[in-house]
Amino acid sequence: MTAQTPHSTEPARTGGRSLTAIVLAAGKGTRMRSDLPKVLHAVAGRTMLGHVLAAASEAGANRIAVVVEPGQEAVAAEIARAAPGASVHPQVERLGTAHAVLAAREALEAGSDDVVIAFGDTPLVTGATLARLRAPLADGAAVAVLAFTSETPTGYGRVLTEGGRVLAIREEKDASAEERAVTLCNAGLMALSGPHALALLTRIGNANAAGEYYLPDAVALAVADGLDVAVVPVDEAEAQGVNDRVQLSVAEATIQARLRRAAQIGGATLVAPETVFLSVDTVLGRDVLVEPHVVFGPKVTVGDRCVIHAFSHLEGATLAQGVQIGPYARLRPGAVLETGSRIGNFVEMKNARLGEGAKANHLTYLGDAEIGPGANVGAGTITCNYDGVNKHRTEIGAGAFIGSNTALVAPVSVGAGAIVGAGSVITASVPADALAIARSRQRIIEGMAGGMRAALQAMKASRSKKN
Amino acid sequence: MTAQTPHSTEPARTGGRSLTAIVLAAGKGTRMRSDLPKVLHAVAGRTMLGHVLAAASEAGANRIAVVVEPGQEAVAAEIARAAPGASVHPQVERLGTAHAVLAAREALEAGSDDVVIAFGDTPLVTGATLARLRAPLADGAAVAVLAFTSETPTGYGRVLTEGGRVLAIREEKDASAEERAVTLCNAGLMALSGPHALALLTRIGNANAAGEYYLPDAVALAVADGLDVAVVPVDEAEAQGVNDRVQLSVAEATIQARLRRAAQIGGATLVAPETVFLSVDTVLGRDVLVEPHVVFGPKVTVGDRCVIHAFSHLEGATLAQGVQIGPYARLRPGAVLETGSRIGNFVEMKNARLGEGAKANHLTYLGDAEIGPGANVGAGTITCNYDGVNKHRTEIGAGAFIGSNTALVAPVSVGAGAIVGAGSVITASVPADALAIARSRQRIIEGMAGGMRAALQAMKASRSKKN
Amino acid sequence: MTAQTPHSTEPARTGGRSLTAIVLAAGKGTRMRSDLPKVLHAVAGRTMLGHVLAAASEAGANRIAVVVEPGQEAVAAEIARAAPGASVHPQVERLGTAHAVLAAREALEAGSDDVVIAFGDTPLVTGATLARLRAPLADGAAVAVLAFTSETPTGYGRVLTEGGRVLAIREEKDASAEERAVTLCNAGLMALSGPHALALLTRIGNANAAGEYYLPDAVALAVADGLDVAVVPVDEAEAQGVNDRVQLSVAEATIQARLRRAAQIGGATLVAPETVFLSVDTVLGRDVLVEPHVVFGPKVTVGDRCVIHAFSHLEGATLAQGVQIGPYARLRPGAVLETGSRIGNFVEMKNARLGEGAKANHLTYLGDAEIGPGANVGAGTITCNYDGVNKHRTEIGAGAFIGSNTALVAPVSVGAGAIVGAGSVITASVPADALAIARSRQRIIEGMAGGMRAALQAMKASRSKKN
Repeated sequence: MTAQTPHSTEPARTGGRSLTAIVLAAGKGTRMRSDLPKVLHAVAGRTMLGHVLAAASEAGANRIAVVVEPGQEAVAAEIARAAPGASVHPQVERLGTAHAVLAAREALEAGSDDVVIAFGDTPLVTGATLARLRAPLADGAAVAVLAFTSETPTGYGRVLTEGGRVLAIREEKDASAEERAVTLCNAGLMALSGPHALALLTRIGNANAAGEYYLPDAVALAVADGLDVAVVPVDEAEAQGVNDRVQLSVAEATIQARLRRAAQIGGATLVAPETVFLSVDTVLGRDVLVEPHVVFGPKVTVGDRCVIHAFSHLEGATLAQGVQIGPYARLRPGAVLETGSRIGNFVEMKNARLGEGAKANHLTYLGDAEIGPGANVGAGTITCNYDGVNKHRTEIGAGAFIGSNTALVAPVSVGAGAIVGAGSVITASVPADALAIARSRQRIIEGMAGGMRAALQAMKASRSKKN
Repeated sequence: MTAQTPHSTEPARTGGRSLTAIVLAAGKGTRMRSDLPKVLHAVAGRTMLGHVLAAASEAGANRIAVVVEPGQEAVAAEIARAAPGASVHPQVERLGTAHAVLAAREALEAGSDDVVIAFGDTPLVTGATLARLRAPLADGAAVAVLAFTSETPTGYGRVLTEGGRVLAIREEKDASAEERAVTLCNAGLMALSGPHALALLTRIGNANAAGEYYLPDAVALAVADGLDVAVVPVDEAEAQGVNDRVQLSVAEATIQARLRRAAQIGGATLVAPETVFLSVDTVLGRDVLVEPHVVFGPKVTVGDRCVIHAFSHLEGATLAQGVQIGPYARLRPGAVLETGSRIGNFVEMKNARLGEGAKANHLTYLGDAEIGPGANVGAGTITCNYDGVNKHRTEIGAGAFIGSNTALVAPVSVGAGAIVGAGSVITASVPADALAIARSRQRIIEGMAGGMRAALQAMKASRSKKN
Repeated sequence: MTAQTPHSTEPARTGGRSLTAIVLAAGKGTRMRSDLPKVLHAVAGRTMLGHVLAAASEAGANRIAVVVEPGQEAVAAEIARAAPGASVHPQVERLGTAHAVLAAREALEAGSDDVVIAFGDTPLVTGATLARLRAPLADGAAVAVLAFTSETPTGYGRVLTEGGRVLAIREEKDASAEERAVTLCNAGLMALSGPHALALLTRIGNANAAGEYYLPDAVALAVADGLDVAVVPVDEAEAQGVNDRVQLSVAEATIQARLRRAAQIGGATLVAPETVFLSVDTVLGRDVLVEPHVVFGPKVTVGDRCVIHAFSHLEGATLAQGVQIGPYARLRPGAVLETGSRIGNFVEMKNARLGEGAKANHLTYLGDAEIGPGANVGAGTITCNYDGVNKHRTEIGAGAFIGSNTALVAPVSVGAGAIVGAGSVITASVPADALAIARSRQRIIEGMAGGMRAALQAMKASRSKKN
């Protein structure tokens, strides 16, 4: 178990009340049919667990405790990356959700005003929803349950209410016909008043068919004690858990719809939003135009009035204003495109800067390069940045012109205003304003083509004979 | 205000009756969050205003008057482009839709049998629908309103009818509970009998909460005069207006569905129509096959039996019969592909003609070029058409063979039947049937690789030490 | 008529009972607007007829008879390819479905325990469904009809039942108001007990408005004889027929949904399944990750832990474990990628093997090539495999390093551990561990660029004057 460290030194954002978030992330995930722990599967470019940890932080958690499957190093690593101060608690036996929460008993004993319990496999629940879930605690509720209304409630626990207060959560199998007609379903997430949390949780028993300790039983205990239990509504789609890869793709679709809508409302045109894939951290400026079939990987920022043509793929790229890329542009991490620059079709850019108004329009690879303002990189240009062992840099000066089909063998520089002749292999640096050419003289052998074709046809005939 | 010019000298198509179309295009469009006027945002490759102007023409309008926001030069330019004879009328004050229509009073005073009022932000209404909307006027109606039936009518004005005739249009806020249950909604578009139009419009008052002059009030005035008011049904999707970019993408989806269906019914196979994006002027021949993930920009014509493989992008291109392109083909304006020719993957073509049966199958750029029938352009060929200032042409003769990785430095020609050796940089024209080679002799230094790798590893080690 | 040959010598799989499948494939398909016979249009990379023939085989048919339009050579060829032993029966007159079945009278007369009648234009019906359809025959039913429940039954024949047994199939036009309210619809497919089949079919009359012999009338005849008629349920989507290209794309969508779901349940992540297109024979291993916008053509096998990045296109390719391809990778038939190898963006591979851990990451064409383990193929490399007449092979040894922008003029080999300098044109084989370079010396002309630009500008000015 990791030493307990506060996740954030900032005060919780809900009226100064402290919040402990307990995230249950120990599921086996058998139905995923994966060697990867379930909570590490990703939606919108972030692990499911990463989404839940981010939501806990956004809801103001100053202490996060994650209950994990023992021995999953990768899960511990993801927690360390996504929520550096979170504590990690292995769940050795699997005796139900309440038992799982108590694996983080240490975190509960440390005390807090509010406790929120979330699940590593419900990645769509937002920080705002967790904040709404804990809000009734400030008004005196001992427990708050998150619930959604479903037209197809079969299989869910039903939330039985009277006058806005929860009476009980009834599992499907224990429900009467009347109770099964209830459409308000338990989403699983729960908030508990810090002072009551441990007492309620430790009193949950396992006198049921499965012999498990069920978290929802905290509700009946609280009601029996005369405590208030609030119900907080949530959209059904947001509450969905992920148990197999079909559900994983449904979660992806839900979060993509959310991200696309936010981008559109913010002032970006997505011609066909259903074909555009965003990451949670994608930033699109005003009057950005995104054509159909575009993928934004993590860490992309696009400035105002940029045009992202169809079939483009971006990750780790920064575009200033009025940049145009694509179709078929591939921007990799470290691509920086200055104002008004242009990357065209079948062009790859990695760890490279394209200066203001510079262009590389066709069939080009720009890796580990600096291209000056106004430079023009011709079709088929390759920066030969890798010698098999080391990576080297290419520098192209302002206003330089690189003729088509040029290989720039790095480390190499082309000075400002220089011109490189088409088809050159540039191995030595070119001074500013110089002309550089490295290509062979053309030889022409008149009337030769006919004879060559005859010879090639003869070769073909001879091959066929052999076969 | 622009001088009034008839938009078309053709007689209106509905029984010889003249038609004035008034298009309201002055909205602020704040919710678009855009520097571009709302009506200039595009769907299916045409501005929303362009769609409405085209529909007005198709409905037989011989006079088109557009009411615009003052000072929007770009809107005036679009009107001049899309409907050259249309008059433009700035709306200085914003006092309601009826007031907006009267900004084009001059057009109404010029007289016509029929008047149709349309909106610059309802781009899906077709010419056929406008023709249906004006049709009742020929049968004696003074007013015709376009209406759709909605399962979710909240927010719309309700069309109150009795026996197929309209009694009134009731705004939601003025409606009784019974009236709110009406599901027939006012789409906003209206047709007015020319002789009655001005009299009705000028009598509309502003005695309402907002102090605005509402166009729908024309209905009650007409009914009070004992005039006939007809209701013309329209599909709810077609009547949708666009106020933000989410609605813009919904409009795009609706028009794409329409275009895809028309292409399919016409005899083209769209394997996955939801991933294919068409323009309003895309022409697909019989037995064309379009694979998933294809984008057709404006001005594309595809002949019978062509195959458009996945991930292709076309604009301004003309394909004869039996042409195959892609996957990953990019055809730009001026690309002309003759019968049976073939463009393969990662190939770009611009302002270039590919002769009958000619091929360019891999990683090639063909710009400002003429490729003769039966020619074969090898992988990695680049036409170096730009010298930094001028564009030059490349000509390749019938049956010529261009070896792979060749740079053709334009202006240059390769004669019919000629062969260019792989890896050449061709700077001078090649006669017909000649062989041209421009490449260096290969040198081999035996046993050298090991030493080089050792040196590169040493360089790497030295770099690491410094860092 | 083709000689009758058993389709399979295996015993039928349903309790050893023999099965004759009769496939009606003679429709004109006018609404397809195609020169291709309707049943040859494809879904998921297989003709509709091919799907139906495969389903018949899967259901255990040991005799398949296909009724075809006379003179359609392409249909006969597809039958010969997809079901080599099937008999082909031209339907000369078009007098209704029962008449069509009797075109294959010869196959019925040959005798079998069970008969199943399927349609060449209902490609989604699975072998499992056909097996369910014939199952009641083993329990004594004389006829079994396939039926679906529809919320919009208008247009379909209704299946009238009592206590799970069918009484009749009533065509829409002959149905009473009460019968029209029935939502159980006839899917068209039928199973007949072999001993009863011919007797029932030949007794069907044509005393109806169209004067046609209707297959569903077999039901009433069987009921009148006191025979049992069973109804077998099927999903409405599975039962859909294809009459135009809109319905063809609906069928494609249905089968894609089925294939995607199966891949997901099997342990592959499809980030955005709605943008991924599979073939019926696509095999995806465990923990395969498929990003958005990927197309799998026929005959692709992907091993465990492979990553298929966005915008990739594969056909006839075999990927071992832990291979990464794309984005924008195009693998064509004969591409074999060994464990841990890597194909990057804008790379095409055809009839080529990439050894363990080898890489070709950018803008490359590998055709007819063998790349050894651990080799690195630089950006812009082209295997020049075609001389205009013959295809030649390229061999690259283990651990070799091919510098960027290299042309390998096949037939050629690069030995193990050899290094090829960037920008080379390699025409002669390179020994192991050698260094090969084939490029020109670089010349630099200082200060030349300014003069060149001035000259080019002058050329431009002179051109403008002429125009």
